[in-house]
Amino acid sequence: MKKILLLIFVTQFMVGQTINSPNNKHVLSFWLSDEGTPTYDLKFAKTSVILPSKMGFKLKDQPSFEKGFTIVKVESSKVNETWKPVLGEVSEIRNNYSELKIYLSEKKEKERKIILTFRLFDEGVGFRYEFPEQDNLKHFVVSDELTEFNLTGDHKAYYIPGDFDTNEYSHTTSNLSEVNALVGRRTGEIFPNWNLAENIVQTPVMMKTKNGLYVNIFEAALINYPALNLEINKKNFSTKAILVPDAEGNKAYLQTPAKTPWRTILVSDDARELLSSKMILNLNEPSKIENTSWIKPMKYIGIWWGMHVGTMSWNYSDVGNVSLKTTDWKSLKPNGKHGATTENTKRYIDFAAKHGFDGVLVEGWNVGWEDWFGKWKEDVFDFVTPYPDFDVKELQKYAKEKGVEIIMHHETSASVSNYERRIDAAFKFMNENGYNAVKTGYVGRIIPRGEYHDGQWMVNHYVRVAEKAAEHKIMINPHEPVRPTGLHRTYPNWLANEAARGNEFNAWSEGNPPEHETILPFTRFLGGPMDYTPGIFEIKMDFYEKGRTNQVHTTLAKQLALYVTIYSPFQMAADLPENYNRYLDAFQFIKDVPVDWDDTKILEAEPGDFITIARKGKNSENWFLGSITDENKRETTIALNFLDVDKKYKATIYKDGADADWEKNPKSYLIEEKTVSSKDKLKLKLAPGGGVAISFIVN
Amino acid sequence: MKKILLLIFVTQFMVGQTINSPNNKHVLSFWLSDEGTPTYDLKFAKTSVILPSKMGFKLKDQPSFEKGFTIVKVESSKVNETWKPVLGEVSEIRNNYSELKIYLSEKKEKERKIILTFRLFDEGVGFRYEFPEQDNLKHFVVSDELTEFNLTGDHKAYYIPGDFDTNEYSHTTSNLSEVNALVGRRTGEIFPNWNLAENIVQTPVMMKTKNGLYVNIFEAALINYPALNLEINKKNFSTKAILVPDAEGNKAYLQTPAKTPWRTILVSDDARELLSSKMILNLNEPSKIENTSWIKPMKYIGIWWGMHVGTMSWNYSDVGNVSLKTTDWKSLKPNGKHGATTENTKRYIDFAAKHGFDGVLVEGWNVGWEDWFGKWKEDVFDFVTPYPDFDVKELQKYAKEKGVEIIMHHETSASVSNYERRIDAAFKFMNENGYNAVKTGYVGRIIPRGEYHDGQWMVNHYVRVAEKAAEHKIMINPHEPVRPTGLHRTYPNWLANEAARGNEFNAWSEGNPPEHETILPFTRFLGGPMDYTPGIFEIKMDFYEKGRTNQVHTTLAKQLALYVTIYSPFQMAADLPENYNRYLDAFQFIKDVPVDWDDTKILEAEPGDFITIARKGKNSENWFLGSITDENKRETTIALNFLDVDKKYKATIYKDGADADWEKNPKSYLIEEKTVSSKDKLKLKLAPGGGVAISFIVN
Repeated sequence: MKKILLLIFVTQFMVGQTINSPNNKHVLSFWLSDEGTPTYDLKFAKTSVILPSKMGFKLKDQPSFEKGFTIVKVESSKVNETWKPVLGEVSEIRNNYSELKIYLSEKKEKERKIILTFRLFDEGVGFRYEFPEQDNLKHFVVSDELTEFNLTGDHKAYYIPGDFDTNEYSHTTSNLSEVNALVGRRTGEIFPNWNLAENIVQTPVMMKTKNGLYVNIFEAALINYPALNLEINKKNFSTKAILVPDAEGNKAYLQTPAKTPWRTILVSDDARELLSSKMILNLNEPSKIENTSWIKPMKYIGIWWGMHVGTMSWNYSDVGNVSLKTTDWKSLKPNGKHGATTENTKRYIDFAAKHGFDGVLVEGWNVGWEDWFGKWKEDVFDFVTPYPDFDVKELQKYAKEKGVEIIMHHETSASVSNYERRIDAAFKFMNENGYNAVKTGYVGRIIPRGEYHDGQWMVNHYVRVAEKAAEHKIMINPHEPVRPTGLHRTYPNWLANEAARGNEFNAWSEGNPPEHETILPFTRFLGGPMDYTPGIFEIKMDFYEKGRTNQVHTTLAKQLALYVTIYSPFQMAADLPENYNRYLDAFQFIKDVPVDWDDTKILEAEPGDFITIARKGKNSENWFLGSITDENKRETTIALNFLDVDKKYKATIYKDGADADWEKNPKSYLIEEKTVSSKDKLKLKLAPGGGVAISFIVN
Repeated sequence: MKKILLLIFVTQFMVGQTINSPNNKHVLSFWLSDEGTPTYDLKFAKTSVILPSKMGFKLKDQPSFEKGFTIVKVESSKVNETWKPVLGEVSEIRNNYSELKIYLSEKKEKERKIILTFRLFDEGVGFRYEFPEQDNLKHFVVSDELTEFNLTGDHKAYYIPGDFDTNEYSHTTSNLSEVNALVGRRTGEIFPNWNLAENIVQTPVMMKTKNGLYVNIFEAALINYPALNLEINKKNFSTKAILVPDAEGNKAYLQTPAKTPWRTILVSDDARELLSSKMILNLNEPSKIENTSWIKPMKYIGIWWGMHVGTMSWNYSDVGNVSLKTTDWKSLKPNGKHGATTENTKRYIDFAAKHGFDGVLVEGWNVGWEDWFGKWKEDVFDFVTPYPDFDVKELQKYAKEKGVEIIMHHETSASVSNYERRIDAAFKFMNENGYNAVKTGYVGRIIPRGEYHDGQWMVNHYVRVAEKAAEHKIMINPHEPVRPTGLHRTYPNWLANEAARGNEFNAWSEGNPPEHETILPFTRFLGGPMDYTPGIFEIKMDFYEKGRTNQVHTTLAKQLALYVTIYSPFQMAADLPENYNRYLDAFQFIKDVPVDWDDTKILEAEPGDFITIARKGKNSENWFLGSITDENKRETTIALNFLDVDKKYKATIYKDGADADWEKNPKSYLIEEKTVSSKDKLKLKLAPGGGVAISFIVN
């Protein structure tokens, strides 16, 4: 690690400060207004990106941090270092920034102090508030964060509705002046929907200015604080922080010394730079886990899609009313559709072993699924009692013999107080029965009632689970948590999250539009890997039941391409084994594609339109390319100059058939082989809603 | 156990039912109104006590249980049995009642069913609602309970304010037409105070009719349901259930089969019968703990009163801002007042051993007290880390050698989510270090925020702790919990509770008026033992600091009498050892008095005026008598006919001095010895705020 620190102490009472990014493209200015209000603005390549914007807080039962400040001290420093992620898109990450630290104090009697830290990277800015230990500020409650991000014009924006509980929305695209988050708000799906105003959206918010600048507002290192929504003024394009509240309407309970998450602004004139930025990760703390040798990427299949398409059930019986305390599970009448049986799990283990998967997820193995959903029931699961038809010991023995891990599933039904009471026993059970990874789930309304998925209390819960899992050498993959903000750097056992609208919605709702996966890299994926569950080959749900109109909104080839465009070290092949058996030639790409990488090149990117990414496997010479489009067909020519210069590769190209179309003919695909080198170019043709996946295997 | 069951099945569509108590004094009638609303009334000795009163519920998101019912079936039965409490006021309890079970069904399409069970005892009535398993009612939310207790006139009532969080109030006495619960609502004490309307009071509500009937409304077996307040109509004296809500304003989340607690109405023309009633206990389930041999009564002293009078502190240092994660406790500067030091604890152990006490409570032994109070801080205590000056191992060794138990203290600061996360480790720590009893504490606002001390979630918490403690063979004594409702029958390790305004208030607030302890037996004590912490000899706080006006509002002799008038198997001698050393003659009574009894006789009782009780020690021939008065002096003559007929006793009489007065001269006492038999009478003279305590030791 190389670190250069340049400390410049500047005397008191200065009014303005500026700081440049290492490449001098970003210039951030900070000053106190006449009233003593902290204010900043941001320019990129001499173009204004953030107009003068205020910073501060309203506190409960004490004066606001809003004005009356004076600058006590200013420090600036530079850091330029590299570090190696445990798992990742690249093997090494450069952390290069200029830092400005402004020490503020109130002029008045209380002289309360805050510190503002700005870090300027080549890709953008992160800033945070710190509350140092001090006599007149010890324990306090944030009732509102006043941070503004005042935008320069009527940008085009890609957003999902502001919410306290869920991120599982499709994006809406509109100009800021026409923001209407309610368009994306769909009821009748799996979460409560909070009726926030139409002009409140979640971060990350992706924007494109009329001048072609890409601007993204988000946060990093969300710890002990609620998640950030933004309120957009549709007339003057100012925006302001809206934090997720608790039962009392309070936002955060803090105790000095305390820090907020980083507020981040990514800016570039090249969309690809935004996607390759590691700024969010760099703003997170290094790994707290010293020995990470037990942390492994996982490509997995699972007893899961069957429940979504309706051929299997999580629940063992259909009684609809059970109790952990009193139900005699053996006496229940099985419904005949239970997925997590010993026999079915063995079938999945066999398939995983045959095709080289690391793990098999088994959902619905434990008692309680008869009335888990929508009841706001507290004692819903115990995480240690299998259904009568699931033999834990037998299956672990079988899986071990086959060299496959069974992945634990802890659906909490959002009854988090219940999970916290039982988590020690649950992790002990995992250790005793050889499980090394768990998919957790938070479907429904949170218990403790009055708390929300994205509030401070739950944010602390997710971190607590990650820490406790690490103590037990367990890897985690939470579903329905708050969206990630780079904490997988600090907790590398936190392999992935859901925290967005995944592929499952295509099975039983209006689904995800073809553009969905071209926007996610600019929004949700900035925070960390997503367990999107790609790889659905039986695209149309009338395959399972005549008349069903649900379908995946991509071609089959695009499902393959997602294994490259979506980075996750915990990546599922989500379809049923029997479906893969009918398309083993296409399935070969899923078998071949790594889930951990030495290098990544963003070749093409435009939010809502297309993404093309090439990645080099971890400790491998082979490259893999994925290219996807939205609802429009697309032709593009890709220079293969990312390949190693003096090598020949066998390129296997999995592409849309000539007549492919996500809606009319999604399963039409062609597989083509070629020998190529870094000097070659490839012409790609993508069908509407289509994609292409290529493996480049060194000859 | 003797049980007589008489089942009478009655055909459908009957409109009215009556049931008598075994002594035929109480007659309860039940009928459906013209609208099909369940309705009851109650007569005692042919006098109306409860006028026609409705029963039912409002449910969330589904029709109310309010009307449209039809009677499907009626069962009646009688029970007459006896059982032996593990610890108690008497060695054997008779459970003798007539039961009426009414099966109701809605007439309309849903045909939802409820069962009403009425039990008539010689002392009063208990009734509860049951929700049996059924197709159209599985999981449901009670948004309001509609139970009425419509009173017959403008009774005199003794009450404390309705509240969600605390019972630590003095009583107000007024006629129902003048009920003003706000009079008793004192701010600036240790709890939040909810601004409920002036006509909402907590149960138990004690009343006296103009005809001299004593009527008490309360509940028994409060499990999985919120506590009961009553709304009083000051004009027509109807009253209605008001349940404690949660963060969402909901009252109870239930799942069939479910039961409410029993709603109880005690009625007698003799106040003494009300105090000797075991109806509340009889309405609770028998012990769930099979082997109770480890459950022992405890008379104890503790490092505790010093903190209340200000000579000691719970906290080790005065920094005011600490963290379980980051504070280096050894580096903190001690404040020099920390009570829970190894040395001080040894001093208390020595005193306990010398005077025959079972245990020494040590509060403030564990880290976190620097900012435990009023901060709504979640990670406040860990329950396993001692302060640097408290040597757990050394002290347990020392205590064991001296034959004394150290009593654990788990103050949660009402951060219950934190306690639940750590309770397994905390109980393990207790087992490993030889602790067999714990005083728990819930001072402050509950976390999860939005929950209340007396709501369903917390009610479940207290029971969960009792159950978990039993698994660890640990006895519990919760402070600031919901008030007890007889659950110490079901969980006999639940020795006592605070749940009312205890002696500590006299140290630092306007205190408890002299009448306080004469009302508590008619209200709070009906639910179970209270850890009131009597035995304060240094009555006036100016003993500790000149100018302090706080004082205990009794004479010293009355402090002794409280050991008999207040039943608790977990009873403290609350004052400082050095204070007892100056009054060892009076202290002898505290040393002699048992805390577990074979028999109890309520000799005199009038709420707000006086109480005289005699009790016979467990497995002993000795009797003890306590008599207390309110602010008025009192003379009474007590026939000693409760003593065994053919025995001589040495009576040691601890009485107020001739000039004693709670305010002017509280420490004036006299000790007199006499030989007496059951034929004798004793004339007692009690000073204003005074009392008398007598031990009758068989010669």
